[in-house]
Amino acid sequence: MNNWALTKLSYGVYAVTSWAEGGRPTGCIANSAMQVTSSPATVAVSINHDNFTNECIAKSGRFAVNVLGESSNPAIIGNFGFRSGRDSEKFAEKPALQDFLPVVDGAIACITCKVIDRMESATHTVFLGEVTGAEILNETDEPMTYAYYHKVIKGKSPKNAPTYIAE
Amino acid sequence: MNNWALTKLSYGVYAVTSWAEGGRPTGCIANSAMQVTSSPATVAVSINHDNFTNECIAKSGRFAVNVLGESSNPAIIGNFGFRSGRDSEKFAEKPALQDFLPVVDGAIACITCKVIDRMESATHTVFLGEVTGAEILNETDEPMTYAYYHKVIKGKSPKNAPTYIAE
Repeated sequence: MNNWALTKLSYGVYAVTSWAEGGRPTGCIANSAMQVTSSPATVAVSINHDNFTNECIAKSGRFAVNVLGESSNPAIIGNFGFRSGRDSEKFAEKPALQDFLPVVDGAIACITCKVIDRMESATHTVFLGEVTGAEILNETDEPMTYAYYHKVIKGKSPKNAPTYIAE
Repeated sequence: MNNWALTKLSYGVYAVTSWAEGGRPTGCIANSAMQVTSSPATVAVSINHDNFTNECIAKSGRFAVNVLGESSNPAIIGNFGFRSGRDSEKFAEKPALQDFLPVVDGAIACITCKVIDRMESATHTVFLGEVTGAEILNETDEPMTYAYYHKVIKGKSPKNAPTYIAE
């Protein structure tokens, strides 16, 4: 078995946001997100059990998929992807809201969801969300693909990512 | 709500294969596939209830994700994506097998899975598969993204696709 074959699957790069208790906005970086049905529209995301965002989505029953673009500031990935919302503030100030969920400044689209089902695996929860709102925030920028993140931004996978391969 | 925001999610293009009863190889085109966990490696695919491949995966408990590349023959998509395996043969001759599953000629990687869980939605089943085998079949070709399929190959979504938008 060649684990590198799994790197041939294609993804985008997303900041998945939700609410922590006390009305504190938080989120994490995910690449494993996909539309599951078109009518009604549903989206599934895979979030590591260890990610604070996992328990925030589980408790609030809501999440937003913020789509990063090729021109999005890579600092968003450092901020949301490489430290925990358990002990850090991911949003510097009061975020803009869409459908009551925190929007990441610099995202090119935001898709808001209500959790309608979940599937557990050894290390990750797949949350299935019914889409409650969807807006394009930047019409011109291209969505950042995970391949672009690796090749152009030279980014790495954090160890909680579904696609992490120990080097 | 702007449904086009959902087109900002990024995907690859895959031929998902399985076995029909009587040992007949079949498959369909999917773009909604993603890795869910890294250790053990698991992959989720979303397959429309109306796709013959759905019932074949459900009955056999096995599927393979064949990753198409930018240089893969677009006829693969016509063959696997725009007619049903219920009344047509998707494989012209005996396919090569990986881990007992049918490999699509021209795929750049093949990931074989055993179904370990499933989640139902209104129109699609999300099958969660534990990866039982993974091989790279073409080291040089780039994975075909769904964006590449639309922009370069000028392909359309069949109406069973999770990402279908009526025009």
